[in-house]
Amino acid sequence: MKLFKKTVIIGTGLIGGSLGLALKKEHLVSQITGLSRHKRNAILAKKSGAIDYAAVSLEVVKDADLIILATPVESIIGIALKIAKKIKKDCVVIDVGSTKEAIVSKVSQVIPNFVGCHPLSGSEKRGAVNLQADIFRNSICIITPTVRTSKKPLNKIILLWRKLGCKIIILPPKEHDRILAFTSHLPHAVAFSLMGCIPTELLSLSSGGLRDSTRISASDANLWCEVFLSNRRNLLASLSAFQTKLAVLKLAIERRDKKLLIKILSAAKGKREKLG
Amino acid sequence: MKLFKKTVIIGTGLIGGSLGLALKKEHLVSQITGLSRHKRNAILAKKSGAIDYAAVSLEVVKDADLIILATPVESIIGIALKIAKKIKKDCVVIDVGSTKEAIVSKVSQVIPNFVGCHPLSGSEKRGAVNLQADIFRNSICIITPTVRTSKKPLNKIILLWRKLGCKIIILPPKEHDRILAFTSHLPHAVAFSLMGCIPTELLSLSSGGLRDSTRISASDANLWCEVFLSNRRNLLASLSAFQTKLAVLKLAIERRDKKLLIKILSAAKGKREKLG
Repeated sequence: MKLFKKTVIIGTGLIGGSLGLALKKEHLVSQITGLSRHKRNAILAKKSGAIDYAAVSLEVVKDADLIILATPVESIIGIALKIAKKIKKDCVVIDVGSTKEAIVSKVSQVIPNFVGCHPLSGSEKRGAVNLQADIFRNSICIITPTVRTSKKPLNKIILLWRKLGCKIIILPPKEHDRILAFTSHLPHAVAFSLMGCIPTELLSLSSGGLRDSTRISASDANLWCEVFLSNRRNLLASLSAFQTKLAVLKLAIERRDKKLLIKILSAAKGKREKLG
Repeated sequence: MKLFKKTVIIGTGLIGGSLGLALKKEHLVSQITGLSRHKRNAILAKKSGAIDYAAVSLEVVKDADLIILATPVESIIGIALKIAKKIKKDCVVIDVGSTKEAIVSKVSQVIPNFVGCHPLSGSEKRGAVNLQADIFRNSICIITPTVRTSKKPLNKIILLWRKLGCKIIILPPKEHDRILAFTSHLPHAVAFSLMGCIPTELLSLSSGGLRDSTRISASDANLWCEVFLSNRRNLLASLSAFQTKLAVLKLAIERRDKKLLIKILSAAKGKREKLG
């Protein structure tokens, strides 16, 4: 079942390109045109079948029925402002950015049929070489409508992500950013700091524990710099909460307080086991 | 090729039991007797073929040629002191504890043929239900002799771990503890704290990043409490180094200092990529 006809994906990296592959695999759109800052990404996306056409100009948006903004967070608002006056009145526009409050509040002012989305399917791997149609299957997609979001495009977009295998969670944009600060941005900030403090010459003497707990510190620096800054206030709050927890653990070690230590470690273990 | 005849494994949990399986698979010892505080572990270890006999008393050490101390770190010294006068003069004793300085200095005083070992093959999984002969293959085993360690047992133990597929690293016990504070104990302390500060009701809205970076916080609380306390001074130093890195990252976010942020994130990414 086709949900949309002409589709334009702006940003054909890991998420944008994989989304192209998934939409085609599920036959949800008629044709896909891709645009990328990096010519190589657009060429690779076309080769892998994620897009039908590689375009070089934003003019392609003018007869699109669905536009997917899949560029890094800092450029989403700028691109939305640029395309707002070019698109058809009933064109549905979504983004897949990691933060939502700023994007949704700015973009929904200029594009009435805008639906903010955040599929939790990212990876430390980037770019069109790692495209996979199935990265959305069994993952969560958070959708962040506002009171002004029209019901019809919203329901179509919910259906689109469902067809890709996502579990849908609806959240206000502000709530999304507060939560993701804890469940995604904080773990990244911690992993970057942990990796940063391990002396390079000791790396060869580590085991799977360090490897797992720092995997996400191999993520793109520019991309995460922008995510951190675009969710600055919430991230600072979650960093403070983490610093407090760490300070209490350190104090328990300093004081050789076994009872407190086992209480802290057991609570964390119990919580981690819930995560599965 | 048999390296030892009668072998006794004290502590038939994940490491002790898996070591039994591996030693038998490679035909490195003639027979293995296992002892465990937890009756269930010894029974499971015997069922899985990790040990030939399950014993209930430390008396079995008296005719052993090789004794492997594979209990949690806090009980290794106590057990070593108990068996020191029971064992044969040429019996070789090794441990597989996560910290080495205290264990090696105390145990080598009472058991001349003692060789401290630390295979970096642990896991957040514990107990005899998760035994695997191959957890040592392609992993690192750190061996921590002192100036007093006799060459003959040392070389035999090095050969034993090599036959199990380990890459051997020789380190002074003190150096081992300083390094592992960074590459193993700190990541665990960080993972426990990170898990601890994430509000339970937000756990369902996380992705693979949080899952990976907190995997080791599902580790056993009692075991890690003892590891932390037995390497207290080094761990506190590595925790301080981490706190400083984290504070600098937080300041860069507070000040919206993109240049510094990208520098921090890129350095971590580069280091992580070396880890493979």
